[in-house]
Amino acid sequence: MASIKITGQKRLVIVSGRAHPALAHDVAEYLQTDVVHTDARTFANGEIYARYDESVRGCDAFVIQSHAAPINEWLMEQLIMVDALKRASAKRITVVAPFYPYARQDKKGRGREPISARLVADLFKAAGADRIMSVDLHAAQIQGFFDGPVDHLFAMPVLLEHFRSQLDPETLTVVSPDMGRVRVADIWSDKLGAPLAIIHKRRDPLVPNQVSVHEIVGEVEGRVCLLVDDMIDTGRTIVKAAEALKKAGATGVVVAATHAVFSDPAFEILQHESVDRVVVTDTLPIPDEKRWDRLTVLPIAPLIARAIHEVFDDGSVTSMFDGAA
Amino acid sequence: MASIKITGQKRLVIVSGRAHPALAHDVAEYLQTDVVHTDARTFANGEIYARYDESVRGCDAFVIQSHAAPINEWLMEQLIMVDALKRASAKRITVVAPFYPYARQDKKGRGREPISARLVADLFKAAGADRIMSVDLHAAQIQGFFDGPVDHLFAMPVLLEHFRSQLDPETLTVVSPDMGRVRVADIWSDKLGAPLAIIHKRRDPLVPNQVSVHEIVGEVEGRVCLLVDDMIDTGRTIVKAAEALKKAGATGVVVAATHAVFSDPAFEILQHESVDRVVVTDTLPIPDEKRWDRLTVLPIAPLIARAIHEVFDDGSVTSMFDGAA
Amino acid sequence: MASIKITGQKRLVIVSGRAHPALAHDVAEYLQTDVVHTDARTFANGEIYARYDESVRGCDAFVIQSHAAPINEWLMEQLIMVDALKRASAKRITVVAPFYPYARQDKKGRGREPISARLVADLFKAAGADRIMSVDLHAAQIQGFFDGPVDHLFAMPVLLEHFRSQLDPETLTVVSPDMGRVRVADIWSDKLGAPLAIIHKRRDPLVPNQVSVHEIVGEVEGRVCLLVDDMIDTGRTIVKAAEALKKAGATGVVVAATHAVFSDPAFEILQHESVDRVVVTDTLPIPDEKRWDRLTVLPIAPLIARAIHEVFDDGSVTSMFDGAA
Amino acid sequence: MASIKITGQKRLVIVSGRAHPALAHDVAEYLQTDVVHTDARTFANGEIYARYDESVRGCDAFVIQSHAAPINEWLMEQLIMVDALKRASAKRITVVAPFYPYARQDKKGRGREPISARLVADLFKAAGADRIMSVDLHAAQIQGFFDGPVDHLFAMPVLLEHFRSQLDPETLTVVSPDMGRVRVADIWSDKLGAPLAIIHKRRDPLVPNQVSVHEIVGEVEGRVCLLVDDMIDTGRTIVKAAEALKKAGATGVVVAATHAVFSDPAFEILQHESVDRVVVTDTLPIPDEKRWDRLTVLPIAPLIARAIHEVFDDGSVTSMFDGAA
Amino acid sequence: MASIKITGQKRLVIVSGRAHPALAHDVAEYLQTDVVHTDARTFANGEIYARYDESVRGCDAFVIQSHAAPINEWLMEQLIMVDALKRASAKRITVVAPFYPYARQDKKGRGREPISARLVADLFKAAGADRIMSVDLHAAQIQGFFDGPVDHLFAMPVLLEHFRSQLDPETLTVVSPDMGRVRVADIWSDKLGAPLAIIHKRRDPLVPNQVSVHEIVGEVEGRVCLLVDDMIDTGRTIVKAAEALKKAGATGVVVAATHAVFSDPAFEILQHESVDRVVVTDTLPIPDEKRWDRLTVLPIAPLIARAIHEVFDDGSVTSMFDGAA
Amino acid sequence: MASIKITGQKRLVIVSGRAHPALAHDVAEYLQTDVVHTDARTFANGEIYARYDESVRGCDAFVIQSHAAPINEWLMEQLIMVDALKRASAKRITVVAPFYPYARQDKKGRGREPISARLVADLFKAAGADRIMSVDLHAAQIQGFFDGPVDHLFAMPVLLEHFRSQLDPETLTVVSPDMGRVRVADIWSDKLGAPLAIIHKRRDPLVPNQVSVHEIVGEVEGRVCLLVDDMIDTGRTIVKAAEALKKAGATGVVVAATHAVFSDPAFEILQHESVDRVVVTDTLPIPDEKRWDRLTVLPIAPLIARAIHEVFDDGSVTSMFDGAA
Repeated sequence: MASIKITGQKRLVIVSGRAHPALAHDVAEYLQTDVVHTDARTFANGEIYARYDESVRGCDAFVIQSHAAPINEWLMEQLIMVDALKRASAKRITVVAPFYPYARQDKKGRGREPISARLVADLFKAAGADRIMSVDLHAAQIQGFFDGPVDHLFAMPVLLEHFRSQLDPETLTVVSPDMGRVRVADIWSDKLGAPLAIIHKRRDPLVPNQVSVHEIVGEVEGRVCLLVDDMIDTGRTIVKAAEALKKAGATGVVVAATHAVFSDPAFEILQHESVDRVVVTDTLPIPDEKRWDRLTVLPIAPLIARAIHEVFDDGSVTSMFDGAA
Repeated sequence: MASIKITGQKRLVIVSGRAHPALAHDVAEYLQTDVVHTDARTFANGEIYARYDESVRGCDAFVIQSHAAPINEWLMEQLIMVDALKRASAKRITVVAPFYPYARQDKKGRGREPISARLVADLFKAAGADRIMSVDLHAAQIQGFFDGPVDHLFAMPVLLEHFRSQLDPETLTVVSPDMGRVRVADIWSDKLGAPLAIIHKRRDPLVPNQVSVHEIVGEVEGRVCLLVDDMIDTGRTIVKAAEALKKAGATGVVVAATHAVFSDPAFEILQHESVDRVVVTDTLPIPDEKRWDRLTVLPIAPLIARAIHEVFDDGSVTSMFDGAA
Repeated sequence: MASIKITGQKRLVIVSGRAHPALAHDVAEYLQTDVVHTDARTFANGEIYARYDESVRGCDAFVIQSHAAPINEWLMEQLIMVDALKRASAKRITVVAPFYPYARQDKKGRGREPISARLVADLFKAAGADRIMSVDLHAAQIQGFFDGPVDHLFAMPVLLEHFRSQLDPETLTVVSPDMGRVRVADIWSDKLGAPLAIIHKRRDPLVPNQVSVHEIVGEVEGRVCLLVDDMIDTGRTIVKAAEALKKAGATGVVVAATHAVFSDPAFEILQHESVDRVVVTDTLPIPDEKRWDRLTVLPIAPLIARAIHEVFDDGSVTSMFDGAA
Repeated sequence: MASIKITGQKRLVIVSGRAHPALAHDVAEYLQTDVVHTDARTFANGEIYARYDESVRGCDAFVIQSHAAPINEWLMEQLIMVDALKRASAKRITVVAPFYPYARQDKKGRGREPISARLVADLFKAAGADRIMSVDLHAAQIQGFFDGPVDHLFAMPVLLEHFRSQLDPETLTVVSPDMGRVRVADIWSDKLGAPLAIIHKRRDPLVPNQVSVHEIVGEVEGRVCLLVDDMIDTGRTIVKAAEALKKAGATGVVVAATHAVFSDPAFEILQHESVDRVVVTDTLPIPDEKRWDRLTVLPIAPLIARAIHEVFDDGSVTSMFDGAA
Repeated sequence: MASIKITGQKRLVIVSGRAHPALAHDVAEYLQTDVVHTDARTFANGEIYARYDESVRGCDAFVIQSHAAPINEWLMEQLIMVDALKRASAKRITVVAPFYPYARQDKKGRGREPISARLVADLFKAAGADRIMSVDLHAAQIQGFFDGPVDHLFAMPVLLEHFRSQLDPETLTVVSPDMGRVRVADIWSDKLGAPLAIIHKRRDPLVPNQVSVHEIVGEVEGRVCLLVDDMIDTGRTIVKAAEALKKAGATGVVVAATHAVFSDPAFEILQHESVDRVVVTDTLPIPDEKRWDRLTVLPIAPLIARAIHEVFDDGSVTSMFDGAA
Repeated sequence: MASIKITGQKRLVIVSGRAHPALAHDVAEYLQTDVVHTDARTFANGEIYARYDESVRGCDAFVIQSHAAPINEWLMEQLIMVDALKRASAKRITVVAPFYPYARQDKKGRGREPISARLVADLFKAAGADRIMSVDLHAAQIQGFFDGPVDHLFAMPVLLEHFRSQLDPETLTVVSPDMGRVRVADIWSDKLGAPLAIIHKRRDPLVPNQVSVHEIVGEVEGRVCLLVDDMIDTGRTIVKAAEALKKAGATGVVVAATHAVFSDPAFEILQHESVDRVVVTDTLPIPDEKRWDRLTVLPIAPLIARAIHEVFDDGSVTSMFDGAA
């Protein structure tokens, strides 16, 4: 037949936005490769430019970006990078967004609101992304916002491993800081074999207009409380919960969260005495000046690196997690 | 200019699948019109056929179907009806699915699962639906699965109106039957000004292998408990919850739910003595032989009719609900 | 360059719906592999669930389903299986639908009808199918309904091989049971070197209102008639044709069809004395209790297995059929 | 509310390609309007340019083109006109293609063929067409190739009206010129209350290599034969059929067809003595020098004009045809 | 027939992003309406939220945003506003982007670059925009990046009207600041009846490495030079051009541009003595502290308001400009 | 696991339209393979048919067509060939269009015009093309019209190599024939180290109504002028420019262009004495009878062949051009 045949090859390429380059480099190092250098710049009027220094033709590209503030800059940079990959003939493009942007606007709470988390999925698709990889989505339904495969990773094994050696289930209570995160706390409770408590923010029927009471549902007196959440943004919810727990007799309050958004005034208030320890991962960059002694930052790169390897090599991401959801 | 000008008109047309024709007729009656007759048939090998008896050209069509069992039959019928409307030049097609099919498969709980609720949205889109109207989605995120407007109606005003005259907030506790429905219970608690309790299904750490304990978090003793959920399927969860509540000293257990799926053995076990009353709406058909004396069925047609009217007339669906979410 | 290179691999995976598991197993056996086990279930309210027990990441997946009654169940199951494959990162998904569902609704016979065969193609696409494989489409134009490759297989070689040793062209007449199937009969006539006859169902001009006469166009007296069709549904058309042929002097009537839909009352009436033999393939499951002595069922699995092999291995499906269309 | 409200208006605009301007003008005249003038030109290298002389913003546009030879020029012109309408903010664009281009390539007769009729539908869609209107599609399945409404008109009422006054059912036989057109002949037979005959082109088993015999199935001796087809291209099939009918004793042969493609040598051979009369419509332009005395050309403009009026006015196209399919 | 008919209405709604609210209010005022209030906010981590205070159901919405720095914030805000409109059932959504974002990245100057101007068009489409309105696109081809109508407005009439009374064609020369803008200068030259000169930035062949010479092609000595460009970003190109012109004997240098990007150090350097006057429009906000005495800012709102009126009312935008391109 | 694994292979296949078969054969020869034979035909009514003689399943197909007149025929043929490849399961389809059709209609110069260059990109996409390869696009923005990778090749290296040995930069001036092509001339000027001149077509303000003057901006007296353009269509612009240059004292005029469209009367007028030499490539076929002694035709096949090799082999097309744009 009139044709030329050669053996097919797959080529893994890692590129990174400018939000959190250390994360991409750590991931590349775990994979024993380098990040392909990108000439990325922001022009005087704020427009972003990106160009790859090496050919990416035919490659299996992973575009790592960390959606810290200024989040719209980094989102747009990643979209531009995906467009450049598409037009440069990358074979497959996976957006790696460890902290999914706009995850909290995942539904219309009221009429005439956007569903920005779906919009973000559509923007990634429009730019040319074939797949998404993310860690601990605020709502698991966000997977369904993207018309294609989503590799949903869980930081729980990373966090659990850290806590198992440090906390005693006998004296531990897992606490959900509000009604919306009860499911996550429930899984932790199950994994650690510790009882569950919930903090119920409720309007006080005796006081009019929006004043809320932090009611604790469950036993916390004399116990160490592990407050779990997917993210810490301004820290206000967590600190108020910690205060309520301490007031109710908790002997210690430890906070575990995957995403350290740490918007102001998180850095200040999380150092409050009611919070004994905060443990997070580095899905978002935490500069040295935003760290304090009672903060522990666990590296997420090994998890992402392993998942990328499984995706590239047609292995199994599911098997990385045993039953966690 | 070389053209013909006429004043534009809008024409509202209601068509209905065969799952629950009474609902469509009630809706049409509230709107002071009739359901356009559809020649719908199932052939010997199970294939469904549908044809409209009147022209639907240029109309604003609402295709009402109730996704009761056999759910795939009724879903396919609705898709076929949408295709026929599209090809018959309907101007705008709104799928009215009071009980959204496959709503519970709204995420990948484990790897290699489908997200069938997203698939359903894609199927409606592929068939030609421009919009979706539904009542009390199992997860509000399902709105984000459809690439277009979703009118999300809430049955709560209908149910609340019923309960306000019947229950005393002083002695009432709102109860969530499991961790996943706490948010809904929280809203009820807020609306009724009654405290909240939660039933926590937990593996007993002393007994190996999947045995679960129904732990009640919150005060229920000596109180009337209002168990709230979006749907009642087999009824098992509800009945177990009711038994646990009674055992814990509840003086009464009333159940409120929007969707009466009532799969076997719901009809039998919901008549259990621990359940004092069940109040549902008729988003799904409930034949006379599946009703019993302590069951109250509230009509959903007025709500849907009003929403259709607002949609047709470019009014506001949001304003139908004051702050409910 | 900063990248990792490995040799690409292709992996063939066969999965199967629950409608006709024996067919998928036969196909897998011919390919010397196994069907990947799927955890498929129907919940109490009729919703279907499916999950693969093994990783399908990066694979070339073939989803075999046989669209027997209840046809909408099996169609929806296949769509759900395709969705799960897509989200589990299968590389390419081929829907194998030996009997294409809703093939007879392939055009608008009248206004305001659906074109369900096109709808089905759109649904497969929406779910994530890249390709379709089918056998003896009711109308070849259905290939054009799908926006992608359709491997259209012909059962004629299988049937012909069977008949060549059994029928004598000298005494044989090929008969089309109605006007719509003349083309197929024409090909048979050509392949077997036997003359053609047609049964013309016509309104009797002397009797008002829909009474039809079975007029035989062509010579059948004293000849063995081979009635050919793509499918046998209720069997009524075939049996009436056979009676007319016998009445016109045919010495034998043999029926050949690819798809044994066998809706009621096919099993009963096909045993009528006017029908001497029925030969079909097993594109649809035929349970033992629906078989009778004068029925011959030829296996379709070898044909499908060979086509899958050609598709997987970038061979040629066209070359499997020499000039058949 | 902060908004401006005005009454909506619909504006009908007719534009025309250069293939058959008389047809568009006739249609516009029946609708009591004018064709909007288009500045259409072909540049030196064959590129086509089109620009509308008047605003088409917000209009309901019908783009009439007749797909005569050179068919690709006229197809491309129509696509360019649709693109210009889309970008000029036309509200709705209906492609009026009385003779659907590439209708005969409606399936893959062999492997590695295109399905050009589907491709044409996709090209119309890509250019921006919302709807298609056509007359007597070669295969009704082509309706399913377009993802949107197709108004399928039938010329039969026009032709029938002509014949009813001219032919006597008592002595008439309707004849299909080959196996592929039997369905159409069947409908004519039914409408006229006349018997049916078929011409069966068959390889002669006694003579090797492709020699075909024109076998007549049905009674034609002493009868006037009405040969019906959807189109006459080169005329060879029709003339050979006419000769065979005369040889078999037919007293007259009248030909009826919707589309007068009349490629060479149609003009010459259709004047053959075996063909007593040819009756066609002017869906395609027939210049005076391609007409002869025994040719009757019926105007199709009234039918198209009425259909456009129904579409514009949200009336019913279905009701224009009583049961014809 | 079973349906409800009412007269259709069109409703014009103006909404605005937060980048340049004065522009939207001016536009609304010219249209004699108000901007619909939007509750727009930026959360602590930079995520943007937007919600409309009034129903926008069925409206013809124009979303005005000015893409000043921080450009990605305002782009993302507009995308979110479009998403919210789409999900709130707006009938038609027009993005009004007077200064098209990323217009300068309209092609791949080198391999592996993005085409960000196309990406932006795709993002608008993905969010739900039906149409785009913009002023003086950097390249007219950008119209072709959007799959839908683009209303391309020209500020030239606004600028020309200003200059006609101020400049004498007899002593005027129109100057293009570089090779890429010659076309625009050519049109000005034609409109004003004044000769053309071009500034040619060229590498000096005698000095190695990127040093460029500003060569003036055409006559400028003793003449007033009108430097024209579509935008002024940092102002460097313009100031260098002005210096070169003055050095070559120009008696005056006036600058005309549509878009006042004015990135640093534009404000400082444009006050350089070589630049006698700068005339721009307010497509982008120019705060008081960025204005100086020799700067003239012409309002663009009347032009946009008129175009919106024509679009809403199905008038003609083309007729607003006589031959300008 | 239940699956079959084999090593993946890539197969390069070249197919060609009928416009310029020599080009495809030259390309294939450089790649050391053959063009896969296509059975391509034009039927009596102008419809085109194409079928591949060999299996193309799973191949990396390059469809070469040269868009000479009749350009719509060849465009349609290429679309049909792409459709046939898609339906025959080609893995990836690259349209090779050395001269991009309709490139000059790349924007709306006036209202109600098409953007045919975008339309062409959409048609290729609709037919199934994954990628486009072209040479010297009339506007580089056309890359952005296609939603996918475009390999934009530059003939400049081919032309430059030819000129470097023939022209002396000391006496050379690069001339742009009009304002629209200044950018291209600028690059040539830079590459050759020769000064630049521009021909400015301007309405004479003293003579009313469209009379244009060919003003030369820059020095040409006593110099050899290299007129550069991307294409020569009728040749009129070039010949008028050459005459003006000679009249202004140029000692020689050499013309360089990539695309030899050569519509009438190019062949006649380009032989005018003012044009000393014309150098083009064979992106379009130039039959022997359209060649003359002062015409040099450089082969483009080596460039295309090398680019195809890089694309097939995941190499780098960018690296083929050092900085050219």
